[in-house]
Amino acid sequence: MTPALPLARQPFFKGHGAENDFLLLPDPGHRLRLDAHLVRRLCDRRTGIGADGLLRAVRTTADPEAAAWAGEAEWFMDYRNPDGTTAAMCGNGIRVFARYLVDSGLRPPGALVIATRAGVRQVHVADRSASLQGPVSVQMGRPRLPGSGPVDVTVGRRRWPALHVDMGNPHAVVLVEDLTHAGDLRTAPTVTPASAYPHGVTVDFAVRHSARHLKVRVHERGVGETRACGTGACAAVAALRHAAGEHGTGYGRYTVDLPGGRLHVRVTADGSMELTGPAAIVAQGTLHLAPTALRRPPRARVLART
Amino acid sequence: MTPALPLARQPFFKGHGAENDFLLLPDPGHRLRLDAHLVRRLCDRRTGIGADGLLRAVRTTADPEAAAWAGEAEWFMDYRNPDGTTAAMCGNGIRVFARYLVDSGLRPPGALVIATRAGVRQVHVADRSASLQGPVSVQMGRPRLPGSGPVDVTVGRRRWPALHVDMGNPHAVVLVEDLTHAGDLRTAPTVTPASAYPHGVTVDFAVRHSARHLKVRVHERGVGETRACGTGACAAVAALRHAAGEHGTGYGRYTVDLPGGRLHVRVTADGSMELTGPAAIVAQGTLHLAPTALRRPPRARVLART
Repeated sequence: MTPALPLARQPFFKGHGAENDFLLLPDPGHRLRLDAHLVRRLCDRRTGIGADGLLRAVRTTADPEAAAWAGEAEWFMDYRNPDGTTAAMCGNGIRVFARYLVDSGLRPPGALVIATRAGVRQVHVADRSASLQGPVSVQMGRPRLPGSGPVDVTVGRRRWPALHVDMGNPHAVVLVEDLTHAGDLRTAPTVTPASAYPHGVTVDFAVRHSARHLKVRVHERGVGETRACGTGACAAVAALRHAAGEHGTGYGRYTVDLPGGRLHVRVTADGSMELTGPAAIVAQGTLHLAPTALRRPPRARVLART
Repeated sequence: MTPALPLARQPFFKGHGAENDFLLLPDPGHRLRLDAHLVRRLCDRRTGIGADGLLRAVRTTADPEAAAWAGEAEWFMDYRNPDGTTAAMCGNGIRVFARYLVDSGLRPPGALVIATRAGVRQVHVADRSASLQGPVSVQMGRPRLPGSGPVDVTVGRRRWPALHVDMGNPHAVVLVEDLTHAGDLRTAPTVTPASAYPHGVTVDFAVRHSARHLKVRVHERGVGETRACGTGACAAVAALRHAAGEHGTGYGRYTVDLPGGRLHVRVTADGSMELTGPAAIVAQGTLHLAPTALRRPPRARVLART
């Protein structure tokens, strides 16, 4: 009842982590010519599939950009923002990426290592194959606080001091009294000085609900407001700890509620963070792309892989 | 490279007509239990696939609701709004529906008849199989002007008189000077008196560009602002003709530009309308639904069809 259509096909998966949604394109042999125009087209929610971000799943041995990690990780997560730009890491994206590898039978559940532009990341997929909704954890590393001078965030007539947190990508975290003060977030908040973030910034608004419980809304760089943001959840925890005088290290378990669901952040004794939450694949299929979107690989590589 | 996942599967197609997008579920044997909760879940752009509307494709002989049309049409378009409610007709939806039937090989290109809750509709799919983007036309019938007393539409502090047009679904059409006056349309305009539209209303804002050329924005009942609306394009043409004193009948070809693209409306001598525009399928695949979403059909019907 699903007859073939005649155009060139690219497989895809659609999934989400706490309603932060991703389009995943399996491209093990690095054959897909994924330019910014195509990324924007695919992430358009009406003329494409639509997603907060695109994940290309390519073998580290096949993509020259990932070759340096081939000894540690079999798969490279090539992350693209929906505006076509690349990004180094995405906490919810990598959890959905891991869910795809496990659900597809490419990796067993349990511990696995995934390469990203921010380096390799340790991920753990709970073995709950019956539900496909079990939690997925990822080691997010230690937040860095560049301390590059005072930063302010402005929405309408409100202005707050913000903390610059680097989670592999740049964040400005504002601790607010009420999340509605962030406004509708369909337009980006103003962050000053702009020179603090030459490559743009994700802005996180956080309300302290209790000592270990935050509520957060996020305006993601290159995306807009999202239902959840993994690096944003970690950056908000870093800001909460900073405000409480817990600098750098010290164990703690935090709960972060976002519009799309609940994430957990565990801080280990050395200050590094583990992000845990739901991740699910909701559909799979084939895109109807024009054949020019597929690049012919070098012949030697094809022969080596088939 | 697209290994099977273990949950129950429902095939789907995603397509759009002038960026008005639809999730199409093939259900020839009427086996899918499609309640409002499931429709909302599938049309959610982050946790589902996402669409302006859902089209279930069921054989008229299999669905008791469509049995009355079985002698005229093989397929019934069961249309659902993304809020889970049903609708009678959708001009862009039926064009995407026809595109699916032809691209899937279920019907040859050319003329075909499709059943809807508003009755059977004549559709024509241009035979341009190489592009999959050829135009699709649908006979939309004659607009009715119920003339149920004066109707007003209010956005912010602006208020306009509107024309009540029935295209099988209810419209309030406002002829404005400037489409920006309609505001951001993320919230529904206020239509008074509410009693004029007991089942809600789609509001169309139209600017007359020339005698036969309109620019239109639409707030669709149960959806929000959409990139295009087929019945809205026809209703806007009806309002333009009404304002010009061209009541009811008289041949004419109109161009309607919407945010998502251009549609053409041809009015025949008897006043009935034909809507023409692009329609494309952009992806197909399988949803990962819980098995409870599938209903076991009566045994006799299964035996008769297999």
